Amino acid sequence: MSSVAERMAKNQKAISVAEFFERNRQILGFDTLTKSLLTAVKEAVDNSLDACEEAGILPDITVSIKKIQKDEYRVVVEDNGPGIVRRQVPNVFGRLLYGSRFHSIRQSRGQQGIGISAVVMYAQLTTGHPAKIKTKTAEMDAALTMQLMLDTKTNRPVIQKEDFFIWDREHGTSIEVDMKARYVAGRQSVFEYLKGTALVNPHARIIYKGPDGVKYTFDRATTEMPAPTVEIKPHPKGIEVGKFLNMAKATKNKKMLSFLHTEFSRVSYRVAKEICEAAGISPDMNPKKLTLQDARNLLKSLDKVKIMAPPTDCLSPIGPSLIRKGLKNILGDMKPEFYAPPVTREPKVYGGHPFQVEVGIVYGGEIPKDRPVSIYRFANRVPLLYQQGACVTTKAVESIDWRRYGLEQRGGKGIPYGPAIILIHVASTQIPFTSESKEAIASIPEVQEEIELALKACARKLKTHLSRKEKKEKNRVKFQIVQEILPQIAEKSAAIIDRPVPDLRGTITQIMNVVWIDDELTFRKDRYRVSIKIHNYTPTGKKFSLHYLLPEKGFPMNFSHPPTESSGQKIRWDLKRIPSTEAIEINFEIIGLEKGDMDENEFYVSGLPPVMVIGAEPLPGDWNVAKMKVDEEVEEDNEPDVDEMEDLIDDSEVGEYD
Amino acid sequence: MSSVAERMAKNQKAISVAEFFERNRQILGFDTLTKSLLTAVKEAVDNSLDACEEAGILPDITVSIKKIQKDEYRVVVEDNGPGIVRRQVPNVFGRLLYGSRFHSIRQSRGQQGIGISAVVMYAQLTTGHPAKIKTKTAEMDAALTMQLMLDTKTNRPVIQKEDFFIWDREHGTSIEVDMKARYVAGRQSVFEYLKGTALVNPHARIIYKGPDGVKYTFDRATTEMPAPTVEIKPHPKGIEVGKFLNMAKATKNKKMLSFLHTEFSRVSYRVAKEICEAAGISPDMNPKKLTLQDARNLLKSLDKVKIMAPPTDCLSPIGPSLIRKGLKNILGDMKPEFYAPPVTREPKVYGGHPFQVEVGIVYGGEIPKDRPVSIYRFANRVPLLYQQGACVTTKAVESIDWRRYGLEQRGGKGIPYGPAIILIHVASTQIPFTSESKEAIASIPEVQEEIELALKACARKLKTHLSRKEKKEKNRVKFQIVQEILPQIAEKSAAIIDRPVPDLRGTITQIMNVVWIDDELTFRKDRYRVSIKIHNYTPTGKKFSLHYLLPEKGFPMNFSHPPTESSGQKIRWDLKRIPSTEAIEINFEIIGLEKGDMDENEFYVSGLPPVMVIGAEPLPGDWNVAKMKVDEEVEEDNEPDVDEMEDLIDDSEVGEYD
Repeated sequence: MSSVAERMAKNQKAISVAEFFERNRQILGFDTLTKSLLTAVKEAVDNSLDACEEAGILPDITVSIKKIQKDEYRVVVEDNGPGIVRRQVPNVFGRLLYGSRFHSIRQSRGQQGIGISAVVMYAQLTTGHPAKIKTKTAEMDAALTMQLMLDTKTNRPVIQKEDFFIWDREHGTSIEVDMKARYVAGRQSVFEYLKGTALVNPHARIIYKGPDGVKYTFDRATTEMPAPTVEIKPHPKGIEVGKFLNMAKATKNKKMLSFLHTEFSRVSYRVAKEICEAAGISPDMNPKKLTLQDARNLLKSLDKVKIMAPPTDCLSPIGPSLIRKGLKNILGDMKPEFYAPPVTREPKVYGGHPFQVEVGIVYGGEIPKDRPVSIYRFANRVPLLYQQGACVTTKAVESIDWRRYGLEQRGGKGIPYGPAIILIHVASTQIPFTSESKEAIASIPEVQEEIELALKACARKLKTHLSRKEKKEKNRVKFQIVQEILPQIAEKSAAIIDRPVPDLRGTITQIMNVVWIDDELTFRKDRYRVSIKIHNYTPTGKKFSLHYLLPEKGFPMNFSHPPTESSGQKIRWDLKRIPSTEAIEINFEIIGLEKGDMDENEFYVSGLPPVMVIGAEPLPGDWNVAKMKVDEEVEEDNEPDVDEMEDLIDDSEVGEYD
Repeated sequence: MSSVAERMAKNQKAISVAEFFERNRQILGFDTLTKSLLTAVKEAVDNSLDACEEAGILPDITVSIKKIQKDEYRVVVEDNGPGIVRRQVPNVFGRLLYGSRFHSIRQSRGQQGIGISAVVMYAQLTTGHPAKIKTKTAEMDAALTMQLMLDTKTNRPVIQKEDFFIWDREHGTSIEVDMKARYVAGRQSVFEYLKGTALVNPHARIIYKGPDGVKYTFDRATTEMPAPTVEIKPHPKGIEVGKFLNMAKATKNKKMLSFLHTEFSRVSYRVAKEICEAAGISPDMNPKKLTLQDARNLLKSLDKVKIMAPPTDCLSPIGPSLIRKGLKNILGDMKPEFYAPPVTREPKVYGGHPFQVEVGIVYGGEIPKDRPVSIYRFANRVPLLYQQGACVTTKAVESIDWRRYGLEQRGGKGIPYGPAIILIHVASTQIPFTSESKEAIASIPEVQEEIELALKACARKLKTHLSRKEKKEKNRVKFQIVQEILPQIAEKSAAIIDRPVPDLRGTITQIMNVVWIDDELTFRKDRYRVSIKIHNYTPTGKKFSLHYLLPEKGFPMNFSHPPTESSGQKIRWDLKRIPSTEAIEINFEIIGLEKGDMDENEFYVSGLPPVMVIGAEPLPGDWNVAKMKVDEEVEEDNEPDVDEMEDLIDDSEVGEYD
């Protein structure tokens, strides 16, 4: 037996991180020739966008792909970013686990310091060629060009050649690699990736020259840079005891009070003192002397102390308006029938990391009907094209009963079927990717819950749209007969027997017995014009309330009927009695919006039995919370209530989907 | 602008691999409290099994989980392995990317040198407690106990305490960690993981003490160790140019010829010479002087040289017989109606790495009917419980049109529905996992193709079973009336009118017009007894052939009718004319099998129109290739043909599933 343990011991040795990834390249996204090409482009473009944003430059990025020989391509990505100082070039491109964004807490595309060096490693592994870097910072007179390889045994860069040259740009960086790869079209192509990138980065201009020689330009939709993200410190509530102890050992602060205050987010001196007191630890204690028990007590005491949630200026969501614009831009060809107003939730926290979820749903038109819905996934403004099945976004979609919202779904689980496309964007200081290839987000419960809430909020809008449409269609035939044909019959009959035409209005109301609402939304010049026509086709006078929800940034004016109340985005009319067979028309205008910001009116009725109203949904029970601002805290704290409300709505209205 | 590039340069720094994984722990399988517990058990058990197998010891492993406080558990895994020599203990448990199996090419569970150190790191991070290791090799008088932590800044072990003690076992290792975790039951529980482990490691005994105090024992089903796997060298056909150049630079061989011969698998001196010649490179050339162009030429020339596939004794498949045993052991409670004979394919190669696929399908009984089929996934004898959606096994299942094989499936894509369970095992010297947590296998095209072929081969058996059953059931009513009731009516009628009972046989054959085959399979003592009864219920005499497929290792004897031909697993009878209304019975026995190795007879008929036969399927067109030995080379080279044949079969028989 001796020999066995001894023999095994002799084989034990350290593995270089580069060797590890060279062997396990699939973990970095290099599992197939097709995917390798996409991964290379993605890593380079991510870096370019990050660098431009950090430097406050509107990104101008050119991606070009050229075929060299069978299964071998040359990829060049060039940007107008700030450039890289000479001494850092070798490490940035030729060393794994080296970067600037790992140690700073804020939203960025790159976080790991692996991606671009992995591209260089894969390229040299498959073709033997070094990567060619060009870079110029604003203060360099000549640009730098460098040919680089990565020594996998040591994980260190090897410079093969270096020179200066005159570059006709003020600043920027370019990387060129030759690699084994295969070029394909379709959902997982470079073209689609760039299209998706343009969708969630409307401030970037991306030029793409494919191997077919054709040049595409994705122009920027806005010249407004995303708000710069601010670096934050870790939040105490997400810290684990081992990490906390490490920080205490490493700090330069001599006292607990200043340690807690200076190294954590949202810990004022007052809060720091409260924490120490609750834990029974002196605020003057030297953090280096902290025992494991002290640390455990301190972290436990956090539950007793009120600490503000982490600041959220470290995040940069896209926002509902730009999501809608992007979707229209990309999906306009399919002529969708409905863009559900996108939902941007308030930031939340998982394990100390702030994150934020955004969702949009597009429905109908030429989107295929008999297929699973498409899910467009994004993380920190980067499209995710692979590993859909492993992604928390997919799990969230699968766990919702979409039959409630008008989509087909076997057993109320799994990806629903129907003519819909769902967009999900997760932004975070630390996206919990399932692997270094950053293709899927791990199933963190807090993240999944937020995505589900966002999806439900957005799906409710879809349901409202579908219910209204369905009811109207069901009643249209009846309406037509009663409204148009009955009077004609009466007229003809009267003519034939030469008697006066009878007044049918009473008869019509008895047959119809509904309040019929028609609405119109048009855009002219700089404003939307809203018209809501209400017909009382019931035998008696009706009195009820009409509720209108304005889109974000919309401002109403020029009312034909002054509203009873108008606060925030909510307008309410308590209507005077509309006599039987009579109608009223409410008109007003909305300014502050651009064309395309609205697709249809969102309005509800209260004070009437739902079966009696055609053309408007009854006011939802959660109007005061969820309908007004979908991201109110109240909603998620009351999640069971929201569900109950949904059940209520379901029972009365969309029971037919079950 | 200067300041931007400079400022960004200042933030660039190296990231320790431990820091990286501390932050991205979800990549290692520590994304949720539930999963963390499973990951810890899995990494420890993997190590124990690998160590035992390497040392040729039948594994005895005890896993115990104890609750310490809310969301905190103590996990202990103890084995009877060879033990670890003192100087390696700290590195094995306290340093990421350190191990013995990374640099050797053969099938093993652990490959990365990350797993167990990651458990130690996660435990100390969440509870602050060190890991407690006990170990003893055969020649140590006293056992060693050591308390260890991992310094994440440097990725090096820190020994906190060390001692010797008397351990009442000859050799073995135990690891104890305290960690944040949550305990659950269900498909992704520790219990299910151990059950799955027992299924594919029938030589191991695993004892499990759960937090509820209950003790389960998974006893070994065999005392035969899996064949020891042999380490191999890389195969030249999987080598990439960058790697090849690195090897050439690092070799101690002075000549190309010896370099190629000694450092690669399957390269004899003759082959090495051929390669050099084809590339126009001198066999005496010093490998260190190889240029990139030389290397490219050499690798290109490989296409012109015949080189044997890599040896496959580096792999250790489970085998059809043990898979079936394991399935019966684990699924017996559900009383499945049919265990399709498992398929073990011949080894194949992807990117130079040998791999092998095994598949089993279980059908019917109490397996739920209205749910997607369950997929049991295994890699190198380790159950994969998470990330099903990301796994190539799932993609392979989804890409098959299961309607052809009798399962329900929307649009012929996606996971099928029905009362079935599919087992897939992939064995390889290098499983291409999608991440370090080893939960899913990446979508390597070669691997997916092999899985699909194995699934189709196994599914054909299922289809045969289902078609036969369906046809029999459809005809049973008719048969009953004609066969049993008609004669009774005739008898009664004859009695009433006092006339002799008429001979109905002619009438019956005219109504039935089928050849009806009933078969029986029973096991007594040491052998299976097969009985096949053939009734000719047609108006004319019939002459045709009967084909029987023996299971692997089965040997036939004591034939009542000597077969016309019997070769390998295939038996054929060219039957003499069976007159109308008559029947014959064929009996024989099969030895060499254990009880449970067979569930039903597999036999076919040729020489009769398929519609005329009830109780046997027509001989498939691919009988000579796929039916006889599913893993013949021929089958995959002819994949289009196989598909065509399936189409043929489909059209005539299972069209009703489309």
